[in-house]
Amino acid sequence: MEETPIEGRFAEGRRRAIIENVRPAVDGGRFAVKRIVGESVLITADAFADGHDALRCQLLLRAPGAAGWHRQEMHHLGNDAWRTECSLHEVGRYEFAIEAWVDPFQSWLQDLRKRIEAGQQVAIDLQIGAIQIAEAVQRAVGDDLRHLRAWHAALVGPGAVRKLQGSGFDDLGELMAGYPDLQHATRSEVHAILADPPRAQFSSWYELFPRSTSPEPSRHGTFRDVIARLPYVASMGFDVLYLPPIHPIGAAFRKGKDNSDTAEPGEPGSPWAIGAADGGHTAIHKELGTIDDFRALVKAAQELGIDLALDIAFQCSPDHPYAQEHPSWFKARPDGTIQYAENPPKKYQDIYPFDFSSHDWRGLWRELKRVVEYWCEQGVRIFRVDNPHTKPFAFWEWMITEVKRQFPETIFLSEAFTRPKVMYRLAKLGFSQSYTYFSWRNQKKELIEYFSELSDPDRQNYFRPNLWPNTPDILPEHLQIGGPAAFKARLVLAATLGANYGIYGPAFERMEHRPAKAGSEEYLHSEKYELRHWNLDSPDSLRDFISAVNRTRREQRALQADRNLVFHDTDNEHLLCYSKRSDDHSSRVLVVVNLNYHAEQHGFIALNGPGLGINVNRDFQLRDMLSGESFTWSQPRNYVELDPHAGKSAHVFVVTPR
Amino acid sequence: MEETPIEGRFAEGRRRAIIENVRPAVDGGRFAVKRIVGESVLITADAFADGHDALRCQLLLRAPGAAGWHRQEMHHLGNDAWRTECSLHEVGRYEFAIEAWVDPFQSWLQDLRKRIEAGQQVAIDLQIGAIQIAEAVQRAVGDDLRHLRAWHAALVGPGAVRKLQGSGFDDLGELMAGYPDLQHATRSEVHAILADPPRAQFSSWYELFPRSTSPEPSRHGTFRDVIARLPYVASMGFDVLYLPPIHPIGAAFRKGKDNSDTAEPGEPGSPWAIGAADGGHTAIHKELGTIDDFRALVKAAQELGIDLALDIAFQCSPDHPYAQEHPSWFKARPDGTIQYAENPPKKYQDIYPFDFSSHDWRGLWRELKRVVEYWCEQGVRIFRVDNPHTKPFAFWEWMITEVKRQFPETIFLSEAFTRPKVMYRLAKLGFSQSYTYFSWRNQKKELIEYFSELSDPDRQNYFRPNLWPNTPDILPEHLQIGGPAAFKARLVLAATLGANYGIYGPAFERMEHRPAKAGSEEYLHSEKYELRHWNLDSPDSLRDFISAVNRTRREQRALQADRNLVFHDTDNEHLLCYSKRSDDHSSRVLVVVNLNYHAEQHGFIALNGPGLGINVNRDFQLRDMLSGESFTWSQPRNYVELDPHAGKSAHVFVVTPR
Repeated sequence: MEETPIEGRFAEGRRRAIIENVRPAVDGGRFAVKRIVGESVLITADAFADGHDALRCQLLLRAPGAAGWHRQEMHHLGNDAWRTECSLHEVGRYEFAIEAWVDPFQSWLQDLRKRIEAGQQVAIDLQIGAIQIAEAVQRAVGDDLRHLRAWHAALVGPGAVRKLQGSGFDDLGELMAGYPDLQHATRSEVHAILADPPRAQFSSWYELFPRSTSPEPSRHGTFRDVIARLPYVASMGFDVLYLPPIHPIGAAFRKGKDNSDTAEPGEPGSPWAIGAADGGHTAIHKELGTIDDFRALVKAAQELGIDLALDIAFQCSPDHPYAQEHPSWFKARPDGTIQYAENPPKKYQDIYPFDFSSHDWRGLWRELKRVVEYWCEQGVRIFRVDNPHTKPFAFWEWMITEVKRQFPETIFLSEAFTRPKVMYRLAKLGFSQSYTYFSWRNQKKELIEYFSELSDPDRQNYFRPNLWPNTPDILPEHLQIGGPAAFKARLVLAATLGANYGIYGPAFERMEHRPAKAGSEEYLHSEKYELRHWNLDSPDSLRDFISAVNRTRREQRALQADRNLVFHDTDNEHLLCYSKRSDDHSSRVLVVVNLNYHAEQHGFIALNGPGLGINVNRDFQLRDMLSGESFTWSQPRNYVELDPHAGKSAHVFVVTPR
Repeated sequence: MEETPIEGRFAEGRRRAIIENVRPAVDGGRFAVKRIVGESVLITADAFADGHDALRCQLLLRAPGAAGWHRQEMHHLGNDAWRTECSLHEVGRYEFAIEAWVDPFQSWLQDLRKRIEAGQQVAIDLQIGAIQIAEAVQRAVGDDLRHLRAWHAALVGPGAVRKLQGSGFDDLGELMAGYPDLQHATRSEVHAILADPPRAQFSSWYELFPRSTSPEPSRHGTFRDVIARLPYVASMGFDVLYLPPIHPIGAAFRKGKDNSDTAEPGEPGSPWAIGAADGGHTAIHKELGTIDDFRALVKAAQELGIDLALDIAFQCSPDHPYAQEHPSWFKARPDGTIQYAENPPKKYQDIYPFDFSSHDWRGLWRELKRVVEYWCEQGVRIFRVDNPHTKPFAFWEWMITEVKRQFPETIFLSEAFTRPKVMYRLAKLGFSQSYTYFSWRNQKKELIEYFSELSDPDRQNYFRPNLWPNTPDILPEHLQIGGPAAFKARLVLAATLGANYGIYGPAFERMEHRPAKAGSEEYLHSEKYELRHWNLDSPDSLRDFISAVNRTRREQRALQADRNLVFHDTDNEHLLCYSKRSDDHSSRVLVVVNLNYHAEQHGFIALNGPGLGINVNRDFQLRDMLSGESFTWSQPRNYVELDPHAGKSAHVFVVTPR
């Protein structure tokens, strides 16, 4: 008979247990699941075997940097589903697998009990059990070894049945459970869980241009000026301060004010045109200060509970040292020049993109990783990454994984405003947070649809939205024309729909709303191309409003997560109503926003009691954290009115059952 | 600088395309998707790359036994989703993968057109294109090679722009598309599609005990008697004739009538106690005839359009030759005897289960595969597998894959009445059809719930239900007490809810309903333990009723699929209403069943027009294939009444728009 080879997946044909449907998982385990240090993770799987033998199922968990697996028993929920929970005590990459195996001893023990109860002869059965105990003796240690030997002696000797009856069955079963034969155990693929620092899940960002922070209108701002600005930022309740690129700015093809093609002498250029004779991505623009000033800024911010976030923009000005030192990292044109950025027929001659397809792609990857590591070494742990969707996915996955191996608490924010699947892929491969389409979702229907998609638990396993009402690149139309009501409503939406959000200031709190031209989302006198001086003490600043919102975010755990979002019906198309509650039920926030910035709106909201987590047919209290007013409601249907002309664009209610 | 290794998944860092979400797929591609030969399969995937370069995406398809991949272009649907269709021309295992890559030439060509339109200088751009054409020249052949050389000459010479304008852009683009640079293409995992024979998806089974087919009441039936019975089976419209095991029956611990522990002399024993001195799983029970008689039966059946199905029951009587020749394939007890089957405290000493965990598990696997191949060599292509869930999953996956490699048209029916995940796993790993819980789903609510689960398109990618109102092991309670109405209703349900169904006859058509004892699903005088003589010509046989149902199944393509099931509301909890329609819209069947076997039921059904696939607000015709009556309806809400006392338990309407 010709022998058919039994190989590959079948080489271990005696593995009888099947493991399926391991959760949580992103793309079947291809990517790590994102969680926060300190959280408890529910892990489930389906596991079963042929026949009727008892099945055992364990979670194998490896903490960051641990050498071996920690085993913990999973519990059978019925219908072949198993579960356990594990706690993430350290920041870093956890790994887990599920192991399952058939345990013939437990089946034997169960059967033996039935045989004895039925009064059958069990002499041979006792011998069968004794053989298995003898095998376990080879694996056992200490007291257990002694006890197993005693059991073995009992089973081959007289009086075995007497010893088993009473608690003997359970004692022996428990003892043997500690020394299973794992020779033919089935192990699932290894899955990963990223235990990120809490700020990856809950953060309030403030973006400013350091060069605009000088108290003297005409002087270039410095890191020292930023240090002086920190109390202002902290007073509003922000905990991440994000700076556009701080590196030397190229002179070649420098852009002038309002993005003009030529800069007048003395114009500062765009911080994203990185690199000059002074250096590139690891150098500091001289006018901002020194590396020591920078370190002082990092430290001063930390003392106020603020993490500094840097901009990672992997592109070069023609003056960048790389252009001389590593011409192979750029595309050469047939005339020997370097290929500049283009969107034909438009040319962006001030920017050289990297060529990730060059023969020295490995050298480029290593150098770019070194750039990030350099800033990590200066104490930076948060990076906002510019246009990651224009560089290869594989590079980001490798770079982020490598950097987090050394600096596990690092947070990367993806600035990819592109197609949804591309944005989701960047999140899956490792970006901790992601910009979203929030800026362009204005209507009630589109907000509900988009945030239902983002808060889906499967999505939340990898995608953490970071919502921005404005950025230096995006002054949305509604802020141009909506007045203070628009600024307030959009701030409340960002800060309560998203656990992570940010504003570009002082443009935001000073309600800068003038576009470069009609139909554009660019700012007039954009700080991308010139220094600005902001009057922070103006009475019409939103500073106090923002402070109130951020205070509520810090006090209410409900607002520190994304997966807990529930929408409630209203009978007015301009009134959006939603709530969040914390897992521990200690915090419950209900938000109503008037999406019409020009007119009073009123109507009834129909509360979804289970969603809100309280009995809405009994008295419950609502305290509006914006107005300070309190209400008592006692039914699901409740009247609300919000009048922007009276300064009211939203309610942010803390809800407590009476 | 220390060099970080860039390896594993990152070793090919220049692969820029990402491929996700390849469909159809079972468990992410781990298992083959099941289809039928002749079908067209829609294949979709998400594919995208970083940046803005043009992406190409192709399906790579390998027909059964083909050496290489056939490539076909996929079409972009927008939102990074791609699709194509492929036809399955042969029975067997197809493989496919998706390949995607960035095509810089197409991006270049598109950009060039914009530059020329904007009146820009393009001399250097033409050189960039020429370099890419020169590379493609290395890959091109025949006329294309000549044309590409001409294009290269044109681009480096004068007059290039003139040659491009008009149709030149498209001509060059199309030409170059045929010779892409696939060096850094991304290829998905390889997925499999099983193109099964049509009978895997649509079959009508009839099970009988050959030993009960003798026209003389006391004589043991033979294969020759079965041949004489074939016209009867064919006349009812069945196309699969399934025989319980036909092998020598063991004498040791033989069971007597009604499953008594001891057989009287002359009692035939259970056909599932396989193996005696005469042989085992490849031998034939002498009283049935010879291997030549068997081959004659296979042939005679085929001439009537009937496939013979054999029972594969991998277990042995103590008299099986394996017990002597391969004691290592069984579990030995410490006293040297072989371990018989048990469900403590019950003992089944007439059955030795195989030990799939023995050191010679490979030898056992090979031998069991040889058994199946032996019967394939005798012309058998359908196997009903007894209790597959008590043998290792890996064995079945290997065995079925190997047998189908040699005999791709083979169909395996899984007789696993066990937990749902186990049943589904057996289907995933290769069983073509599966027994279900149908026998125990009686109420309207539970039928809707269960068949919604089974007809789900993702489930249908691997699970093909085969519905049995009765089997030799299962005489459900409703058949014991429901009278002819129950038999008719259950037959209609099985034959119209399932594209595959079967009955155990003549017990079914003769409405055998006596249980072995109260509360049991075993038949009194079960054919498993004794010969029976059936009067086929009795006037109260359901033969004609069954014939009418099977005729409708053959005529109506709608009834030949499972994924097209739609339920319609009724206002009577005993009236179940559903429809199916064929993909080509040529056939549409609406079924109403009275689930109360004891009383007339009437009520209104509310037709779901889109589900039925016609405009239900205009006249449409219904012809009842059971009663011959015709109706015209012209609205969604319609009255029906079904009176079992008048012989009416169901409508099987063929629906045609007027």
